[in-house]
Amino acid sequence: MSIKSKITLVERLQEKFEIAQKSTLAGTGEAAAVITCNDHIRKLICSDMLLEGIHFNLVYDPLKHLGYRLVTAGVSKIAAMNGLAMQILVSVAVSSRFSDENLETLFDGIRTACVDFKLDLAGFDLFTSLTGMTLTITAIGEVAEDAVSYSSGAKVNDLICVSGDLGAAYMGLLLLERERRVFETNPQIQPKLEGYDYILQRRLKPLARTDIVESLKEAGIRPTSMRVLTDGLSSEMLHICRQSGIGARIYLEKIPIAAETFKICEEMNFDAVTAAMNGGDDYELLFTLPIAEYDKIKSKSGFNLIGHITEARKGRFLITPEGEEIELTTLVFLKAE
Amino acid sequence: MSIKSKITLVERLQEKFEIAQKSTLAGTGEAAAVITCNDHIRKLICSDMLLEGIHFNLVYDPLKHLGYRLVTAGVSKIAAMNGLAMQILVSVAVSSRFSDENLETLFDGIRTACVDFKLDLAGFDLFTSLTGMTLTITAIGEVAEDAVSYSSGAKVNDLICVSGDLGAAYMGLLLLERERRVFETNPQIQPKLEGYDYILQRRLKPLARTDIVESLKEAGIRPTSMRVLTDGLSSEMLHICRQSGIGARIYLEKIPIAAETFKICEEMNFDAVTAAMNGGDDYELLFTLPIAEYDKIKSKSGFNLIGHITEARKGRFLITPEGEEIELTTLVFLKAE
Repeated sequence: MSIKSKITLVERLQEKFEIAQKSTLAGTGEAAAVITCNDHIRKLICSDMLLEGIHFNLVYDPLKHLGYRLVTAGVSKIAAMNGLAMQILVSVAVSSRFSDENLETLFDGIRTACVDFKLDLAGFDLFTSLTGMTLTITAIGEVAEDAVSYSSGAKVNDLICVSGDLGAAYMGLLLLERERRVFETNPQIQPKLEGYDYILQRRLKPLARTDIVESLKEAGIRPTSMRVLTDGLSSEMLHICRQSGIGARIYLEKIPIAAETFKICEEMNFDAVTAAMNGGDDYELLFTLPIAEYDKIKSKSGFNLIGHITEARKGRFLITPEGEEIELTTLVFLKAE
Repeated sequence: MSIKSKITLVERLQEKFEIAQKSTLAGTGEAAAVITCNDHIRKLICSDMLLEGIHFNLVYDPLKHLGYRLVTAGVSKIAAMNGLAMQILVSVAVSSRFSDENLETLFDGIRTACVDFKLDLAGFDLFTSLTGMTLTITAIGEVAEDAVSYSSGAKVNDLICVSGDLGAAYMGLLLLERERRVFETNPQIQPKLEGYDYILQRRLKPLARTDIVESLKEAGIRPTSMRVLTDGLSSEMLHICRQSGIGARIYLEKIPIAAETFKICEEMNFDAVTAAMNGGDDYELLFTLPIAEYDKIKSKSGFNLIGHITEARKGRFLITPEGEEIELTTLVFLKAE
């Protein structure tokens, strides 16, 4: 299913449902549901799924990293609402070829992530699968009632920021896929993965940017909108544009790309900006904030100013150093297919 | 994986995790996580998964019913903690052979259940699957802080009750499987499903017993322990026994079995008590309460007294009318395999 037809279908399905409970403050269209708790706190609850053959390949995704990545996926969605996750529920469906030791390795990764992100495993279940492996996570977090960031709050003239650097996870995937194909053609040739530590780590064991949420809180900033970059910068920016009814201009030379990512892009003859804009799975945060707030974070590490919000009629563009305007698209590369 | 080895593995994995957050009141080992919210309310959050070929078969599970059943699965787990669900999050992974119309039918069932159980769909996502269909649900509910039922609270001399009748869902499955095999052997022979409405409805479109939770509340009763009967009465009773450190005596002639279930059991030469004890997927509630409380509900419909709690050393038994003691086992039949 293309992302575009998926968006249309999701919106059509969504329209048929009405919100009846007072405690439901937001849900579909956001990274996590926002639920009333008490006068000061909102509960944030999200779920995510990792499917074998789509999101991971057991040929090169070590089980321990995979467990860690599952937690990152859940925690990142809570972070995208400007909250911190506190509990997770995990379900694992595996075929009988999985040994208990395999499952223990997977849960070692989950436990490591729980320690790193101060999370409680508050429920888990194991299922038998007749086909591939499926992992699901529910993450539960909190945010102060006046600090929730929705995807619908971006305003004209707001600045657009991203954390970290982009495109590394996608290039890590391309590298792993290249070496897998070489190995499958000739099992005598060992995969060449040395010297690619950074991009491999970004793909195999990505981190949730809870530190960014904490930095924003320290700085007293509530982003006017926020998303986690799982489907690529372009797709997530367009989501904010649709939800907020605004336009955007992102400046190509401002997009943060690591030296290691440029290096592998050159080696594989792949455009680094395309990897950053459409690659996905970086788990970095994309957010907007009023110009007046920017001074509070510009000296902090991990924040990159990449563009600004415009009126909707001005469109959604990537601007090249030569001033060329390239329309943002929802193009998303296939994951591990 | 056998249920027994699954329990051992789950417990071993569980031991490695520590609870660090103050807001986590209960999690693994219970049907739902119990999370602090305010002084009076606890949030209950659970997740569940339905896998093609394990929990359903698209040959005979209509998509609309399947959507409904997914919601029942989530809402029932919240009910098992003596709470009522208010929001759900749904994820659906399907292969490209699924049309948009198929997905709309599935979501029609989800919507019907949302209306029946007064739920908001507070988030959903669609995924591409390379293999079978996978459905996941996260259900979010509430319960008063002094009304949560855990599986660990059963006391010696408590009475054991179940709602509704048992074994019908399993016999519905056996009937569907029989007709599927006949049809696959000779596609000219149409499935004979007329006259089996009750057991088919119990299998295909089971209801969550939120009415029981409401009745208990009206009667001012907080069950000392509660479970939802997805893995069969025997398995769920043993879970309460392990968690509460007690024994149990269930009286065979007290087990509620519908006339329709007896009829199909006779026809298929299958033991009705076995279907009730080990069949599963009835989504009825099993609970314990102090003897003194029983008068408050004994005249209400839907409640069946089936046994009582003993000291752990007295074991866990099914008692026949002849006084024979049959040890409860975790035997669970394979689902749709």
